[in-house]
Amino acid sequence: MKKMYVAGVDIGGQTAKIGIVDRKGTILARKVISTKYKDADKFITLLSDSIREMTADIGLENLNGVGVGAPDGNYYTGDIVEATNLMWAKGKTVHFANDLSKKLGGLKVTITNDANAAAIGEMKYGAAKGMKNFIEITLGTGVGSGIVIDGKLVYGHDGFAGELGHTCAVKGGRDCGCGQKGCLECYCSATGVARTAVEMLSKSRAKSLLRGKRDITSKDVFDAAEKGDKLAIKIFADTGRIMGEKFADFIPFSAPEAIILFGGLTHAKDYFLEQLVDSMNENVVFLWKGKVKVLVSALNESDAAILGASALAW
Amino acid sequence: MKKMYVAGVDIGGQTAKIGIVDRKGTILARKVISTKYKDADKFITLLSDSIREMTADIGLENLNGVGVGAPDGNYYTGDIVEATNLMWAKGKTVHFANDLSKKLGGLKVTITNDANAAAIGEMKYGAAKGMKNFIEITLGTGVGSGIVIDGKLVYGHDGFAGELGHTCAVKGGRDCGCGQKGCLECYCSATGVARTAVEMLSKSRAKSLLRGKRDITSKDVFDAAEKGDKLAIKIFADTGRIMGEKFADFIPFSAPEAIILFGGLTHAKDYFLEQLVDSMNENVVFLWKGKVKVLVSALNESDAAILGASALAW
Repeated sequence: MKKMYVAGVDIGGQTAKIGIVDRKGTILARKVISTKYKDADKFITLLSDSIREMTADIGLENLNGVGVGAPDGNYYTGDIVEATNLMWAKGKTVHFANDLSKKLGGLKVTITNDANAAAIGEMKYGAAKGMKNFIEITLGTGVGSGIVIDGKLVYGHDGFAGELGHTCAVKGGRDCGCGQKGCLECYCSATGVARTAVEMLSKSRAKSLLRGKRDITSKDVFDAAEKGDKLAIKIFADTGRIMGEKFADFIPFSAPEAIILFGGLTHAKDYFLEQLVDSMNENVVFLWKGKVKVLVSALNESDAAILGASALAW
Repeated sequence: MKKMYVAGVDIGGQTAKIGIVDRKGTILARKVISTKYKDADKFITLLSDSIREMTADIGLENLNGVGVGAPDGNYYTGDIVEATNLMWAKGKTVHFANDLSKKLGGLKVTITNDANAAAIGEMKYGAAKGMKNFIEITLGTGVGSGIVIDGKLVYGHDGFAGELGHTCAVKGGRDCGCGQKGCLECYCSATGVARTAVEMLSKSRAKSLLRGKRDITSKDVFDAAEKGDKLAIKIFADTGRIMGEKFADFIPFSAPEAIILFGGLTHAKDYFLEQLVDSMNENVVFLWKGKVKVLVSALNESDAAILGASALAW
């Protein structure tokens, strides 16, 4: 009997989204559970119970497998390794795929990091449909990436390939959570945009709606830009230029057809996309000037990661 | 009847090396011809005549194909595109594979760039034997690269992937032949080393065997280093550090098992390799600190490109 369904699970710092998905990518059932547990086993039990519950009518035996997208998820080992954003995986290795599989009677569990899952979702259902070479860049709290070459996701020697958020954007620049300085993630993530705001406010004396605000977020910067705030608009423009410079460095590696942007920060694309493309084309070697598309994801954000994760399980 | 031989051709700015190779990688016959012609057809005719001549005893019909490594050779199209180092392909596109095939009675001709050919040779016969993920960096007049992921050479969307010599090593740095500024090639090639020498001599007042020398080459710098010249030693140390910083940026892309150095400049490895590895490990994100090997090619330099090119033709 052909198994018709898979479960796709997108694990984030706050919640995990679970979906039961058919071959066409239709999500038949959804559930959101908290990930804020200190104990990995507690979370994995809750997840496996949820999957059992959600498949009660179709039967667990009709599930082809479970695909999981998680921060620092390793495709080769099935582990989640030192995920700073997950309370139960901070500073340690959780044998996630193995443990979840045991609780689901040996069902196959495949795991990868969240950005890779987004790239797979994009290729199957989104803006990269039909593409064989592209780079998915996720612009969320951090900057992640999933790289597809010749139709296949790149995992590399150890399963951790595609950490473009931790390449150097500004030599000797801002401290990054990873321990290095000047990583792309420190400038072009939501938190990076907020850091740029604080920096610019302290450096300039220009008027801005952001002045005097506490704990500025990228959403604050976006709202200010929408109201015509010049400083906010400049923050996004500079963010775009830094991204473009770095993209110019990624292109000679894999010669992608497109670079696809995914995640919360893309809502502000009107304020940075043009600058990004201009700076990318200025800085890339002549072979690719004007030749690499920069697209915004065609996936519904809340579904994308579920679909990407589910695609792993086919 | 099984065809037992292929021809491997390594095209450089001065000469082309031709080899007739068997399945084990034994080079049965060799020939070197000049590439210094203004007319592409003239060179292609000479090359095809040479291959015919070299296979006179085994018979052209026993040749499985011809593999060619050439600057700016494109695997997908078979063309050599705007190769600044080849008189007959400067600023234009030469349909090389197609034209050579015609002159050889329709024999299959496969082409790729010289660094890719070196990577293939390394994987089949050299330091990357058994590796599925590595990056070959060629340090010659320029800096080239061939990237292998999951056992396959990366060509990308357009066939030009792996131009790591034209990623940015120093923002706003030296003018590069490609039109950009600060490319890795401007610092870590043989010409880059010579440029560093000129720059350092003009900046410092330190004594050096290089002072007063005209048209300094990387060989001069190497000879001076061998004699204990401190400035020359510093030139290579700085070169190593710049390479290491950039390698730290390449690793998060494809998570290679090793980065393999190939080409003339590796003769000076005693003066830069340690600094390279240190700076790579300092600058790379924690996931790969101390984990990626940096190796020097195990291929005889003059054979490597022929073998790599020949491997294309199997």
